[in-house]
Amino acid sequence: MPRITELDVIDLRFPTSREKDGSDAMNPDPDYSAAYVVLRTDAGDGLEGHGFTFTIGQGNEIVCAAIEALRHIVIDRDTAGLFGGMGAFYREVTSPNQMRWIGPEKGVVHLAAAAVLNAVWDLYAKVEGKPLWKLLADMTPEELVAVCDFRYVTDVLTPQEAVERLRARQAGKAEREREMREVGVPAYTTSAGWLGYDDEKIVALTREAIAGGWDHIKIKVGQDVEDDRRRLRVIRDEIGPDRKLMVDANQVWDVDEAIAYVEHLKEFDLWWVEEPTSPDDALGHAAVARAIAPIRVATGEQVQNRIIWKQLMQSDAIGFAQIDAGRLGGVNEAVLVMLLADKFGVPVCPHAGGVGLCELVQHLSILNYISITANLDDVVVEYIDHLHEHFLDPVVIRDGRYIAPRRPGYSAEIHADSLRRFRYPDGPEWAGEPAPALTVSGGE
Amino acid sequence: MPRITELDVIDLRFPTSREKDGSDAMNPDPDYSAAYVVLRTDAGDGLEGHGFTFTIGQGNEIVCAAIEALRHIVIDRDTAGLFGGMGAFYREVTSPNQMRWIGPEKGVVHLAAAAVLNAVWDLYAKVEGKPLWKLLADMTPEELVAVCDFRYVTDVLTPQEAVERLRARQAGKAEREREMREVGVPAYTTSAGWLGYDDEKIVALTREAIAGGWDHIKIKVGQDVEDDRRRLRVIRDEIGPDRKLMVDANQVWDVDEAIAYVEHLKEFDLWWVEEPTSPDDALGHAAVARAIAPIRVATGEQVQNRIIWKQLMQSDAIGFAQIDAGRLGGVNEAVLVMLLADKFGVPVCPHAGGVGLCELVQHLSILNYISITANLDDVVVEYIDHLHEHFLDPVVIRDGRYIAPRRPGYSAEIHADSLRRFRYPDGPEWAGEPAPALTVSGGE
Repeated sequence: MPRITELDVIDLRFPTSREKDGSDAMNPDPDYSAAYVVLRTDAGDGLEGHGFTFTIGQGNEIVCAAIEALRHIVIDRDTAGLFGGMGAFYREVTSPNQMRWIGPEKGVVHLAAAAVLNAVWDLYAKVEGKPLWKLLADMTPEELVAVCDFRYVTDVLTPQEAVERLRARQAGKAEREREMREVGVPAYTTSAGWLGYDDEKIVALTREAIAGGWDHIKIKVGQDVEDDRRRLRVIRDEIGPDRKLMVDANQVWDVDEAIAYVEHLKEFDLWWVEEPTSPDDALGHAAVARAIAPIRVATGEQVQNRIIWKQLMQSDAIGFAQIDAGRLGGVNEAVLVMLLADKFGVPVCPHAGGVGLCELVQHLSILNYISITANLDDVVVEYIDHLHEHFLDPVVIRDGRYIAPRRPGYSAEIHADSLRRFRYPDGPEWAGEPAPALTVSGGE
Repeated sequence: MPRITELDVIDLRFPTSREKDGSDAMNPDPDYSAAYVVLRTDAGDGLEGHGFTFTIGQGNEIVCAAIEALRHIVIDRDTAGLFGGMGAFYREVTSPNQMRWIGPEKGVVHLAAAAVLNAVWDLYAKVEGKPLWKLLADMTPEELVAVCDFRYVTDVLTPQEAVERLRARQAGKAEREREMREVGVPAYTTSAGWLGYDDEKIVALTREAIAGGWDHIKIKVGQDVEDDRRRLRVIRDEIGPDRKLMVDANQVWDVDEAIAYVEHLKEFDLWWVEEPTSPDDALGHAAVARAIAPIRVATGEQVQNRIIWKQLMQSDAIGFAQIDAGRLGGVNEAVLVMLLADKFGVPVCPHAGGVGLCELVQHLSILNYISITANLDDVVVEYIDHLHEHFLDPVVIRDGRYIAPRRPGYSAEIHADSLRRFRYPDGPEWAGEPAPALTVSGGE
C-alpha cells in the first residue's frame, strides 16, 4: 500500500513587478507567486504530486505556513484510500479541528487547502496515467459528484440532482472529448491590457493579438475614466466592431460608483465588466448587473468559496463565472461550482491571470464542456502569455484555443531548476534583493 | 515625537479542551487562544498597547505569522500621526500591497489586522487616559465616522449620513454615560450551555445562573435533536416561562436542515437561533429567518467583514448582530458595523465566547448605546465565566450587567505571568504536551 511520505512546501516567487506585468488598478506591482507543494510516496514509481495556489508576493510565506499546518493530514496517508475518498479528504483538509476557526473555507487557510488538494489530484492523475481532465471525464456521474462537498449549497443543488444532471449529459461525451483534443476550448487574452502599459505598447500588443487569432480582448480599467476611455478607443479602433472587448476593474468601485463609471464606457460596446466591486458582495454585483444591463457582469478570481458563488447565482448577479483554480478548494470545489453554474445557466470563464493558472484551468474548462455543460456558449478561458517556460507541460494554444493536455497529471509541475532559482527569499533570483516597499493597494 | 519602537507577537493558548469548556457542535475541543500583540514606544511613559484576536488553538501560529508580516506598517510610526489618522491606518493594515490578495479582509489576514488595530487602540486610549469606550464616546460625530472605512458599503450608508445620524443622538449622551458607569449594559450567559456538559452539570449551572440574576440563557444545539430537546426541556423547566432562552447551532446545518430542525425546538419558546448555517450565507440566513419567524436569527462571530454584514442586513436576515471584536477589522470596523446595524434597526449583541472577548466587546456595546443607538432594546452582551483571572482589568458584572470599565485602555492586557505561562508551544503550561490530535470539525 503506497503511502505519502514527503510533503515539501516551496515559497516560489517570480519578480513580475519589475516589468509591471500583471499590474491593475488594485494591485500596482504584483510578483506572481505560488505556494507550491510537492508530494512524494514510497510507491517506487518516481511519481510526485505537484500543486499550488497563486498569490502576488507578500503573504506567500503565510500560505506556506498554513500548508505546513495541514501536513499531518497528508503524511502517511495511503494513496489508494485518498484517491478513493477525495470527497472525505476535502472535508479533512478544509475543516480541520480548531483551524476551521481562522477560515472557515476562506482566505489563507483555503488557499493552503487548494495547494494541497491540487497536489493530490496531480498525483492521482499521474498514477492513473491520465491528464486530470480525462481522469474526471472518465468518472461516472456518481463518482464525480462524490468528490464534491455539498455542505451549505444543498438548498440550490443536491448530490442526487447533480447526478441526474450529469446523466443527462452523457450523450455525445466521446465526440466532445475528441473535439477538446483536436480543436480545444476557446481562450481570450489579457496580455495587452495591463494598466501599466503605455499606448504604444497597447497598440503593438493588440495588433499582435489580432494577428495571433484572438477574438476577445480584455483591458484593465478603474484608475482614471478619461484614460480608460482613451485606451478603449485605441483598442476598439484596432479590433474593429465585431471582436469582443471586456474591461476589468479589480474591485476598485463601490456599487454606485461602478454604475456611474460604466455609463462612461458604454459606447465601446463592452461584453463584460469584471470585478466591479468587492468579491464578497453578491447583492452588490446584482445591483450593478441590473443597472448596466445588457452589459454583463463577470467576477470570480477572489470569490472565496461555493457559498458566495451560490449567492451570486441566486441573485442573478453574474453573466460569467470566473472560477480560480487556486482560490477555490482545489479541484473538488471547482467541480462543485461548475455544477452550480450549469444549473443556473452561467457560463464558466475561468480566471487565469497568474502563474500556472492557465495550466490548471484548462483542465477544468475541458471537463466542464465534456461532462457538465456539453456546450461552449459564451465560454472563453483566460490566457496570459507569462511564465509558461517554467512548466514541464505548458499550455498549447492553437488558433486562440487551449488544446487538451495529453500528459498525465494536472500540468502543474514546474521545472526543478525554476523551483531552485525562484525560491523566496534565498533562491538565486532573490538573494540580495531588498524587501519590497510596503504600499497600500489601490482604489483609494 | 513618540514612535512605536517594538511589536511583540505572542502565540498564547489556554488548554480549555481539557475541560470541554467551550465545546459545541462544530468545535468539539477548542483551546481558547489569542494571537496577542504588545506595542511599545519611546515616549518614556511606560504605556504599552495590548491587543489580540481570538482563535481556538491550531492555526494561532499562522495568525501570528500574519501579524509579523504587518510589522513594517507599525514599527517606527509616530503615535500622534497614527492616533490622528486611524481611518487611514485601517486601510494600510487591511489592504497592504500584495497581501490583500490572500484576503481581502477575511480569514487569517483580517484576524491579524484586528490584533494590530486593537493594540493601537489600547495604546491610544491609555495615552489619552481613558477607557476605550470613553475615548470613542468623546469623539465628535465627524471624528468617530473618520475612523471607519466605508469602502464597499456606501450604497447603504455614506460617511455624511452616518455623521447626521450621530448628530441626532447627541441629546442625552451624558445621562447614558452615567447609566453605563452606574448600571451597565445587560449581559447573558452561555456558561451553562456548552455541549459537552452532562445534564447534572447543566442543571447546577442553570440554577447558579438564575441565582446570579441572569435572565437570558443560551445553550448549544445541533448534534442530536432528541438530546437538544431533552436539554432544552430541563433548562426551560429551571428558568420558568419568562426568562429568555436562546440556542446556538454553530453553523452545523444547511438551510433546509436548519428550518426543519428548528421546527422541533419551537415548543421551548426560543428568542433566537444562532448561527443556523454558514457565516458566508446572507441569503441562506434570510431564508431561515423567513421560515422560522417569529423566532429570530442571530449570527456574527464568523461574519468576516462589513460587506457580509451589509448583505445580512439588506436581506433582512438577522434579528441580532453578534459582532466579534477579533473577527472584524478591530475597533474601526466594529464601529462601522454598529453604525450599519443602527441604520437597519438590528440590535447589536456581541459575541464573547472566547478568551478576553468579554473584556473587549463591553467597550463596543457601551459606545453603541451612548453614541450610536441611544437605546438598549433587545440588547444583551454575551458573557462567559472563563479566564478572566488572566486580565489586569477583568470585566465587572453586577446584577447581570457589565459595568463600564474605568481604567484607561481597551481592557485587553493580560498579566505578564500568564503571557509567560501559556505561551505556545514553549511556555510552562504546554512544554511536554503532545501535539493535539487532528480531527475534523463537526457537522458531518
